[in-house]
Amino acid sequence: MTNPVSRREFLNLLGAYGGTSAVLQAGAALGFMPSSSQAAEITLQANNGKKVAILGTGISALTTAWELTKAGYGCTLLEASHRPGGRMFTVRSGTVIDEIGNYQRCEWDNDPHLYFNAGAARIPSIHSNVLKYCKELEVELQVFVNESKTAWVQDDAMNGGKPVRNTDYSSSMQGFISEMLSKALGDSQLDSSLTESESEILLSMLRRFGDLNEDMLYKGSTRAGYGSGGFLDHGTKKDVVALRDLLKARNGGSVMVTTQEGTGSGPLLMQPVGGMDRIIYAFANRLRDRIKFRAPVTEVMVRGDGVEVAYEQNGVTEVLKADYCFNCIPSHLMSGIPNNFPTDYSEALNYIRRGRAYKAAFQAKERFWEKENIYGGITWVNAPIQQIWYPPHNIHGKKGVVLAAYNFGGANYTEMSQEDRIEDLLKHGEKVHPNYREMAEKPMTIAWHRMNHMLGCAPRWARDRGGWSDKEEQMYETLRQPVNGRHYLIGDQSTQHSAWMESAIQSAHHALADLDQRVRSEPA
Amino acid sequence: MTNPVSRREFLNLLGAYGGTSAVLQAGAALGFMPSSSQAAEITLQANNGKKVAILGTGISALTTAWELTKAGYGCTLLEASHRPGGRMFTVRSGTVIDEIGNYQRCEWDNDPHLYFNAGAARIPSIHSNVLKYCKELEVELQVFVNESKTAWVQDDAMNGGKPVRNTDYSSSMQGFISEMLSKALGDSQLDSSLTESESEILLSMLRRFGDLNEDMLYKGSTRAGYGSGGFLDHGTKKDVVALRDLLKARNGGSVMVTTQEGTGSGPLLMQPVGGMDRIIYAFANRLRDRIKFRAPVTEVMVRGDGVEVAYEQNGVTEVLKADYCFNCIPSHLMSGIPNNFPTDYSEALNYIRRGRAYKAAFQAKERFWEKENIYGGITWVNAPIQQIWYPPHNIHGKKGVVLAAYNFGGANYTEMSQEDRIEDLLKHGEKVHPNYREMAEKPMTIAWHRMNHMLGCAPRWARDRGGWSDKEEQMYETLRQPVNGRHYLIGDQSTQHSAWMESAIQSAHHALADLDQRVRSEPA
Repeated sequence: MTNPVSRREFLNLLGAYGGTSAVLQAGAALGFMPSSSQAAEITLQANNGKKVAILGTGISALTTAWELTKAGYGCTLLEASHRPGGRMFTVRSGTVIDEIGNYQRCEWDNDPHLYFNAGAARIPSIHSNVLKYCKELEVELQVFVNESKTAWVQDDAMNGGKPVRNTDYSSSMQGFISEMLSKALGDSQLDSSLTESESEILLSMLRRFGDLNEDMLYKGSTRAGYGSGGFLDHGTKKDVVALRDLLKARNGGSVMVTTQEGTGSGPLLMQPVGGMDRIIYAFANRLRDRIKFRAPVTEVMVRGDGVEVAYEQNGVTEVLKADYCFNCIPSHLMSGIPNNFPTDYSEALNYIRRGRAYKAAFQAKERFWEKENIYGGITWVNAPIQQIWYPPHNIHGKKGVVLAAYNFGGANYTEMSQEDRIEDLLKHGEKVHPNYREMAEKPMTIAWHRMNHMLGCAPRWARDRGGWSDKEEQMYETLRQPVNGRHYLIGDQSTQHSAWMESAIQSAHHALADLDQRVRSEPA
Repeated sequence: MTNPVSRREFLNLLGAYGGTSAVLQAGAALGFMPSSSQAAEITLQANNGKKVAILGTGISALTTAWELTKAGYGCTLLEASHRPGGRMFTVRSGTVIDEIGNYQRCEWDNDPHLYFNAGAARIPSIHSNVLKYCKELEVELQVFVNESKTAWVQDDAMNGGKPVRNTDYSSSMQGFISEMLSKALGDSQLDSSLTESESEILLSMLRRFGDLNEDMLYKGSTRAGYGSGGFLDHGTKKDVVALRDLLKARNGGSVMVTTQEGTGSGPLLMQPVGGMDRIIYAFANRLRDRIKFRAPVTEVMVRGDGVEVAYEQNGVTEVLKADYCFNCIPSHLMSGIPNNFPTDYSEALNYIRRGRAYKAAFQAKERFWEKENIYGGITWVNAPIQQIWYPPHNIHGKKGVVLAAYNFGGANYTEMSQEDRIEDLLKHGEKVHPNYREMAEKPMTIAWHRMNHMLGCAPRWARDRGGWSDKEEQMYETLRQPVNGRHYLIGDQSTQHSAWMESAIQSAHHALADLDQRVRSEPA
């Protein structure tokens, strides 16, 4: 023991944020804490008969078109694919997954509950703008279950490879953490550094947090349910998973923070009833024939007085002329489309890299997870499939769609045949659920970096998680300014926080506010 | 520092459960961990034309009647109240709260979403028998939200009395716990006690758990959302709530274990769509005229060949003769009804005390919590109201019913007038939501210990949480045996784990299994 918590360090910890607390109190006196993201009120006032070309139909493009249409602008949306929505994509009976070299048509039962959100899948309660549009467009929402304590943690290295319930992992880990910390602090430490009331509250909190016994020791918990009895007979605790064994699970960090995965996921999560693309079609059905499908853009020329966009339709090249252009075509694809962007703008577009997310799902013959007391949530598997999700909706229904893989890095799935991908998800899944292979009907897979018109998943800006380089900052600022005051780049690619719908919408609002300023100052 | 974690202690912690891990692996090799409560298969085979009197219509009584009816037994249920369900009670437009001295009729809007589960409100995913009946009787379920990180924690002693978001409390507390523990363990400690891989995993887990920086220090987290920016501009962290301030919240333990409240609540929680009494009416509608309402029992006599139950109906005393009797009348009320139970049985009945739970709710003019990014979950208030719950259903609807108080001990509410109760919930609630008073329409309150035909809430057996005395064990066993093989006490009062529907159902199954044995061995 060379580096325990010294009394000085503990006092520092107690004191370090004293000033901050004062700030909080001052803020609190004025009212309440600000939300992290207030829903912006977009108020476009003048349209002066302007026309806008919108490239792509991701959520940023649809938001743009919807707000412009409400304000009386003329809009045309060009979409290369047969469907709107970009990376908001729901797979159900009849859906085509247009992966290059791996075309799939979904042949699941035709049932509104049987769908798979192959892209965006969760709406955090603090994503105010997404929620604002769901309310405005009457998209019915329901609670999404991200964490289930009855779901499993599986790692070949832990417990002989057999799965452990999330609660057996997390209750024990909480218990050991609490026990270790209460010992580390020690009675006299607390007596001397804390007031009596503070000591009491800290120990009481640690005791409840870890479910410790009266001696502040972790001896197992019935939070996970009883080993036996508990209702009619006295309940016995389940066996404790040894700390040493818990430490073999290499995905333990994920298990302990499931509800906080990613920055946006700490809050409650929701999903649209029937699939994430309910949001897309809520917009698209209102925009109707303003959207041209199978209309890939072939050239974007920014002129002094507007924008000319060439696109193909039915084998013929057409030209769309507009006063302004809002563009959410993925940057790495846009780089390959002839344009007359300034050099620094092109360089910046070229810079953004893309994630390689892979997902898979199947229709389950029966809701086998409910027989294991699982009703939604995530099973963590230390294998390339990484996660298994169970549907939180249609409880006790006949079938359900299980997300059978969610890999953020793409792993080796790119090169795998569809057969090998399916064998991979079955092989790892049956370590958790013995009847998995038998239950899995018609697996579908999607490698976003091979999807037609996409060839990549979420944009990646910063070189590493540590932060942005000066060069990246500069490029980002370049792309935030419209070319000639005419061409706006939108989508999560022009935000700091990619892969979330909220970001894409805020990028559209940002560009719309700029447009509004310009149009107001122009003659009609 | 007199009592830090010594290396020996840490090694003990690592080693203490080695045997257990071996047990787990042995168990795992045979298949998977047992569920804490498998749904029992009730298979009553013989009925021999027997008739059963069932006293009360709590869920144990309804379960009994349903299983007996399916097996061909004749059943009659006697209910003192005008409604079935006992402590499964949903208040909505038109519902009468039959509290003695505080009769209330609910005049909320007539809308299926506007209801208040005044008794049981949550179904844990491990309560297999409740779920089994929901499935069998086609009661539609939806996810219940118990924990919301965007809900509030309020304590007059913390942050000047202004509320703090749950996530600001719990993210910071997790951070400080992780930081303190990682310091306490120290680098060389880890090096010497753990393998390199174990150290790495423990530190990585603590780092993720606490959202620590690279130096293993807690410097705030964006898990709670950003202080500013985050989508278009770089996100800033919110101010950290000082540890010393966190320790002023006397309900911190509850905040840190919201999802594990009570033994049964660690798992996902569900609720029936439209109110908990959907389960009650699913039974009652199938049992129809077998139930006699406003039929209070006035005498229970156990005979050698059956049971005679006297009850009143329309001012007339009737006698119901049956071969067997299943009785879920609350023990402290049954004690006052003339009977010929053996002395030890009567003593045991007399012994069971009752909780004094108090709840309140109002119809909110608008779903004001959604404007604060709250979509369900619990706000913790360190005042007698204790908790505020927001409805997780009908997201973005017009109104909603807010649970405005949930006190397990009854506090002083028993003696308070309805006016004072309402002022109490408004006064504390508006510390959290400034517009609370204006939003609250038609508050309803319920003190279970004053409810007609109830006069108490959940039964309490053990003298304290520490365990059961020998005398209590003996009394419990006495009540588990039928009087003369004819009279069965059922309900959560004859279980180890009161206040849960699962317990009541299991008590019924236990008694039914005993009955089945007896009937099989009797001549027809």
